[in-house]
Amino acid sequence: MTRFLESGSGFASAEWVMFGAPSDATVSRRGGAQYAPDVIRCESHHIESYSPSLGGDLKDVSFVDLGNVFLSPGDVQSYLTKVEKVVTSFAGKGKRILMIGGDHLVSLAGVRGVISKYSDLHVLHFDAHADLRDFYLGSRYSHATVMRRVAECLAKSKRLHQFAIRSGSKEEIEWGKRNTDLHLMQLSEPLRKVIDEIGDSPVYVSLDIDVLDPSVAPGTGTPEPNGIGVSDLFDVLRYMKGLNVVGFDLVEISPPNDVNNITSLLGAKIVREVLITLGGDSVDQ
Amino acid sequence: MTRFLESGSGFASAEWVMFGAPSDATVSRRGGAQYAPDVIRCESHHIESYSPSLGGDLKDVSFVDLGNVFLSPGDVQSYLTKVEKVVTSFAGKGKRILMIGGDHLVSLAGVRGVISKYSDLHVLHFDAHADLRDFYLGSRYSHATVMRRVAECLAKSKRLHQFAIRSGSKEEIEWGKRNTDLHLMQLSEPLRKVIDEIGDSPVYVSLDIDVLDPSVAPGTGTPEPNGIGVSDLFDVLRYMKGLNVVGFDLVEISPPNDVNNITSLLGAKIVREVLITLGGDSVDQ
Amino acid sequence: MTRFLESGSGFASAEWVMFGAPSDATVSRRGGAQYAPDVIRCESHHIESYSPSLGGDLKDVSFVDLGNVFLSPGDVQSYLTKVEKVVTSFAGKGKRILMIGGDHLVSLAGVRGVISKYSDLHVLHFDAHADLRDFYLGSRYSHATVMRRVAECLAKSKRLHQFAIRSGSKEEIEWGKRNTDLHLMQLSEPLRKVIDEIGDSPVYVSLDIDVLDPSVAPGTGTPEPNGIGVSDLFDVLRYMKGLNVVGFDLVEISPPNDVNNITSLLGAKIVREVLITLGGDSVDQ
Amino acid sequence: MTRFLESGSGFASAEWVMFGAPSDATVSRRGGAQYAPDVIRCESHHIESYSPSLGGDLKDVSFVDLGNVFLSPGDVQSYLTKVEKVVTSFAGKGKRILMIGGDHLVSLAGVRGVISKYSDLHVLHFDAHADLRDFYLGSRYSHATVMRRVAECLAKSKRLHQFAIRSGSKEEIEWGKRNTDLHLMQLSEPLRKVIDEIGDSPVYVSLDIDVLDPSVAPGTGTPEPNGIGVSDLFDVLRYMKGLNVVGFDLVEISPPNDVNNITSLLGAKIVREVLITLGGDSVDQ
Amino acid sequence: MTRFLESGSGFASAEWVMFGAPSDATVSRRGGAQYAPDVIRCESHHIESYSPSLGGDLKDVSFVDLGNVFLSPGDVQSYLTKVEKVVTSFAGKGKRILMIGGDHLVSLAGVRGVISKYSDLHVLHFDAHADLRDFYLGSRYSHATVMRRVAECLAKSKRLHQFAIRSGSKEEIEWGKRNTDLHLMQLSEPLRKVIDEIGDSPVYVSLDIDVLDPSVAPGTGTPEPNGIGVSDLFDVLRYMKGLNVVGFDLVEISPPNDVNNITSLLGAKIVREVLITLGGDSVDQ
Amino acid sequence: MTRFLESGSGFASAEWVMFGAPSDATVSRRGGAQYAPDVIRCESHHIESYSPSLGGDLKDVSFVDLGNVFLSPGDVQSYLTKVEKVVTSFAGKGKRILMIGGDHLVSLAGVRGVISKYSDLHVLHFDAHADLRDFYLGSRYSHATVMRRVAECLAKSKRLHQFAIRSGSKEEIEWGKRNTDLHLMQLSEPLRKVIDEIGDSPVYVSLDIDVLDPSVAPGTGTPEPNGIGVSDLFDVLRYMKGLNVVGFDLVEISPPNDVNNITSLLGAKIVREVLITLGGDSVDQ
Repeated sequence: MTRFLESGSGFASAEWVMFGAPSDATVSRRGGAQYAPDVIRCESHHIESYSPSLGGDLKDVSFVDLGNVFLSPGDVQSYLTKVEKVVTSFAGKGKRILMIGGDHLVSLAGVRGVISKYSDLHVLHFDAHADLRDFYLGSRYSHATVMRRVAECLAKSKRLHQFAIRSGSKEEIEWGKRNTDLHLMQLSEPLRKVIDEIGDSPVYVSLDIDVLDPSVAPGTGTPEPNGIGVSDLFDVLRYMKGLNVVGFDLVEISPPNDVNNITSLLGAKIVREVLITLGGDSVDQ
Repeated sequence: MTRFLESGSGFASAEWVMFGAPSDATVSRRGGAQYAPDVIRCESHHIESYSPSLGGDLKDVSFVDLGNVFLSPGDVQSYLTKVEKVVTSFAGKGKRILMIGGDHLVSLAGVRGVISKYSDLHVLHFDAHADLRDFYLGSRYSHATVMRRVAECLAKSKRLHQFAIRSGSKEEIEWGKRNTDLHLMQLSEPLRKVIDEIGDSPVYVSLDIDVLDPSVAPGTGTPEPNGIGVSDLFDVLRYMKGLNVVGFDLVEISPPNDVNNITSLLGAKIVREVLITLGGDSVDQ
Repeated sequence: MTRFLESGSGFASAEWVMFGAPSDATVSRRGGAQYAPDVIRCESHHIESYSPSLGGDLKDVSFVDLGNVFLSPGDVQSYLTKVEKVVTSFAGKGKRILMIGGDHLVSLAGVRGVISKYSDLHVLHFDAHADLRDFYLGSRYSHATVMRRVAECLAKSKRLHQFAIRSGSKEEIEWGKRNTDLHLMQLSEPLRKVIDEIGDSPVYVSLDIDVLDPSVAPGTGTPEPNGIGVSDLFDVLRYMKGLNVVGFDLVEISPPNDVNNITSLLGAKIVREVLITLGGDSVDQ
Repeated sequence: MTRFLESGSGFASAEWVMFGAPSDATVSRRGGAQYAPDVIRCESHHIESYSPSLGGDLKDVSFVDLGNVFLSPGDVQSYLTKVEKVVTSFAGKGKRILMIGGDHLVSLAGVRGVISKYSDLHVLHFDAHADLRDFYLGSRYSHATVMRRVAECLAKSKRLHQFAIRSGSKEEIEWGKRNTDLHLMQLSEPLRKVIDEIGDSPVYVSLDIDVLDPSVAPGTGTPEPNGIGVSDLFDVLRYMKGLNVVGFDLVEISPPNDVNNITSLLGAKIVREVLITLGGDSVDQ
Repeated sequence: MTRFLESGSGFASAEWVMFGAPSDATVSRRGGAQYAPDVIRCESHHIESYSPSLGGDLKDVSFVDLGNVFLSPGDVQSYLTKVEKVVTSFAGKGKRILMIGGDHLVSLAGVRGVISKYSDLHVLHFDAHADLRDFYLGSRYSHATVMRRVAECLAKSKRLHQFAIRSGSKEEIEWGKRNTDLHLMQLSEPLRKVIDEIGDSPVYVSLDIDVLDPSVAPGTGTPEPNGIGVSDLFDVLRYMKGLNVVGFDLVEISPPNDVNNITSLLGAKIVREVLITLGGDSVDQ
Repeated sequence: MTRFLESGSGFASAEWVMFGAPSDATVSRRGGAQYAPDVIRCESHHIESYSPSLGGDLKDVSFVDLGNVFLSPGDVQSYLTKVEKVVTSFAGKGKRILMIGGDHLVSLAGVRGVISKYSDLHVLHFDAHADLRDFYLGSRYSHATVMRRVAECLAKSKRLHQFAIRSGSKEEIEWGKRNTDLHLMQLSEPLRKVIDEIGDSPVYVSLDIDVLDPSVAPGTGTPEPNGIGVSDLFDVLRYMKGLNVVGFDLVEISPPNDVNNITSLLGAKIVREVLITLGGDSVDQ
């Protein structure tokens, strides 16, 4: 298996631990997210390790790419359990987590794993869809219910901060308005406020690629028209510098539905910017 | 056949009548518009019925999707006649029309049908191309001549209001400047003025998907670089609230040339926003 | 072979000479640039010759499309030599050059050919990548080293003006800061200053299509996320009016990796705008 | 939803009941089998109802297409249970079953459902792969273990007759030689013998499309080179005339991996030939 | 426009005249046949002019490729008239015709044109489909009715010899059995007999590419499973040596639905073999 | 990098050495052969290591996959030299070579390397094309000239045995008839004779995937209609048992032009069958 660009090789010394969660468990429109971790790794070798806009280099970040969690197809519960155990273990050892999905449901395992150590966790959620249904297609565990389940995990459901949401049923939007910190079609302004409030509390970030416009990220299972731009997203990533991010996931990239792998390339660049922004400093100091 | 999301089932009580006009009659570059009505219907089930930005729900709009007008291939004139008859009949019964093409030539049938009832009709035309040629590839009836024919139908050709046009031959642009209300590369500002002037006169809207940039709407027969953005278009749709729109068509989406059906998804979302904007109120009142 | 839209037929009287350099010599990610000249020509017949935004028509520009330089595959050096000879010959006869690549390495041949006549040449370089490596994949001649080689050709390496660069290794960015006129992530403002400084000195423009965002130009070998928009580029082309552009190349369009040929269509439109902007006046005068 | 060509509408009077089992549960290489039932139905309208080679017409077969079993994604066990219940119910009412998958694991539910009524069932299995593993990717329930589980259901495992198998691990081939009626690379000759032996015992037929060569059936998840031809398969279907086939499934067609839908078209034609061969007589008599 | 490989340039001296009839007039499943003439010409340059199996070379055949008949889209009748006129004119000058479609309806124009000179014409028809309907999708002029119309043109409808037909409605097959010389699923044997009977009467050959199996010719509008092989077809072409073939058409190749242009390549090779077989001798003598 | 299925890890003890030569040096129609080695390796993990038809297992073959020779793009001569050196070195150590291309020109390097040790080498060449031109597109080194260059290397050019050739210019076919052991359109019969004559002399086998019909191997640069079938090829591979094969190459698979990777899967299966046939025995003895 190809490792992510400039991955270190040692687990013990790594501050950040990257792994793939190649699930395609709960597809409703189009699948293919299971291929994302490997294709993103492959395309990472077609970008530079250096970020001109950040002035930092991935070479200076302490991280290791451990490969993929093995998926036994057809049993979502055992898969969630497996990913949660892995994350719990890493978090217990003081590692910061960078998980590459996979469909969005894996974020539930990510949050559960991290929360085992950080009970006062905040979650920042960037997505086109609110993902707040209670049931979807007959199940409580789905990409469309994942943030409802996440909200239930948190000490207070208002610690789920949702940004740039532009799609949802009437019921879930109303539920969100009452129960989570939901921001419809808004990104930068509310995010800055939230960041101020969070301070140095532990944070988990869940980034669904479909928060972006389908023109810049066509390779995803349920594209939703009229999304945010890439530069908006990169601004957001920069705002996070200084936050105590203990977990980060990037989900729902679907290489088979992409054109010329531009969505996977973007995924690789997002990972690079995240690691340099959040991981670079600690190394320098 | 799959109906459009949340289509009612009764014709008699419906304020809006939706149908498909699956023509591919006059292709010059790439065809495939005949597949648009069914693919847009299919993708409509992958968006929500609720619009967070409008705060309204398609469930509250009185409309019915009647399926497609049957196309006897290879005879444009009989096809235009058939669509015109259908529209004339619907308009005669006081219905508002929402037609999904098909290539742009079907707009001529749509306008002719509506004008049978509303002789003082205005037409709002959003397109990359002026479509004002007199002849094209040997024919007076083509996607490239359709707005010339439409102008000839109207009581005054200046009631043809064209927005965001960014392509045309020198001759047709000059003809347009003299004969229609032509706005090159401009959208929002002139549209607001026109809307004020029109007041509550009956309006037909013809929306060629290629008015959008090819990045957001790649699935079309003759994409033209440097188009408008999706949020510009959605703003425009909102401006129309209050206009007396008696007919609306969405044309030139070509699913076989698309990537991951994002253009058809966008088409479905446009239809939703149009129906909620124009149809929601009348129901509430 | 199909000629570019409205190509004249006479070499002697043409002010601008267009030709294709269908090389795919030094691919690292994905190839296909060899097909660009012919696909761009083909798609040129699906846009108009008239530019509404410039108010000019390609019919009024004195140019001829001579077809492609014959490529003997597998020998980059002899190919560079051949293209350089062709350009030297054209420049010697007072022609202005418009070369359609091909991979970016052909720009080296273009610059060498033009510099044979214009020793005080400035180069304007628009690209996602700095292309300033000394070696790449074991070679000094590659799409990733081409601007280093170009810098070495110029009387002063600071006459290489690089705009909108958003990717590069730390080493090449630092080398660029010392040796070229490198502008990271910036376009319009520094360009205007440079244009003022250049005055009527001879200029060669090298435009790598990947300077644009992958959403608007997906058909390229090494797309780089977060690029400039089409309207930004078209603004830039207009700024050049009045510059003494003696050579222009458009490189790295890769039709096999495109969607619905939108990148090649864009290439055709760029060529039209360039020729009308730079070539229209001289004809009128 | 589009019904299969010439589907009747009444359940009570139908001899054959067709339904789709759109599962994609246990993908190891490429998915997409979930889309097969609907695409096969759609393509069925592009073939004729009449079979020149059989001299019969689908119009004369008593069958009804009931649509798809609803799939709650991500829980294979509950899905198997649901399909099994459906089949048990149909079989209990004396219906013959025609199930369109979905991945091959659904055949286990089909056999279990049918065997509830016919304890002396024989199974005819046509496939590239033996599918006789005990475990695969950590699970006992997978497209690669399905026939091992089927063999365990049958009164005698030698009643599992496997034809044209051309791929398997050494272990599963050896297990098959001891425990099932396994025929490597052979089709017509052993099949005729088996048909003679079976007489009028109840039979379930499981047809994995990858028994065919990838050239004629490229749209499948795990194509295996050097398969049988279409005319070989159609001969086999004719041999079955007179057999007491109480269940039939067609699995592993994957439309997203197909070219021009030729595999789905072939699937539609197989269904037509099966229904005319097995269902036509009972109607005539 | 690229000419077919080794096309001569003089009309007057050419024994065979080739032209394209790029119609897509009467699509029911998938279009794209309009692109076939140009793609076949392009791919002809990727095969050799020499045929090892025939021992002849296209260089020794007297033929000229005249390009395409101009298509005014959307009016089938005027298009048929135009093609018929062209063929009538060529036939009147003693030319032999090789027409590349386009959809199958153009064969009607080809036969009508040729019959103007040769009233005792026989037609050899190779196809998956009988194409003998009287009406199809509301029209008497369609790819599905074309041979019914052709039969009506001939002095005796039994002079329409149909081979390898494997699809049709019950009605059209029965009509064919009574009225044409229809051979279901049979090719070589009946063809040899027919050739003996025809002697040196004038013959028109209409070859629909879908007579071949979809595996070897996937790029067609209505592929029909279980077709003949390429070597069967090439045998057939050789049998025709000595026949007085005055017209030949190759129709229904659809490049947009192909894989790697293999169907167009095959089309180019068929044209080569036909011209060397039928045209080579006359040159030698 | 993923290794080929069941690759050993030790060079010293391996009888066979596998490596990739990812060249795309001399493309005339379509490229992409550079991606073949890695895609074939990847797909090898989707077939079994056991061959039911041979009764052997890849696990029992002594081979190692060493990865790819590094390609410095754009310089064919240095690449040929590098591959030749590698092969010379391996052959000198008594290894048998299995090279995966890459375009066909790499076979020249393979033969040159092997011949350094085995001066009395015979070459068995399976291909659609004779590849016997002296020059092609201005070069003596190309996929179309490679066997002319190979013939010049051999002690006697009649030791170049060419099978199933179905395409070539008149000149190269005539040159082949005089100078090589050329068999047009024939495979099995002449091969058996040649095998008898060769006895235990050292043999190099060069297998161009386009010897197969495009239906079974569409993923190749220059497909040629009417090729041999997969079972014909697998018979041929079995005949070779007992031959003293010291080198084997498989070339011209082009993944970007394939459908569902079936050509690469076939390539993986060919490699498995070759290694079990030629490598299995020697291990057992």
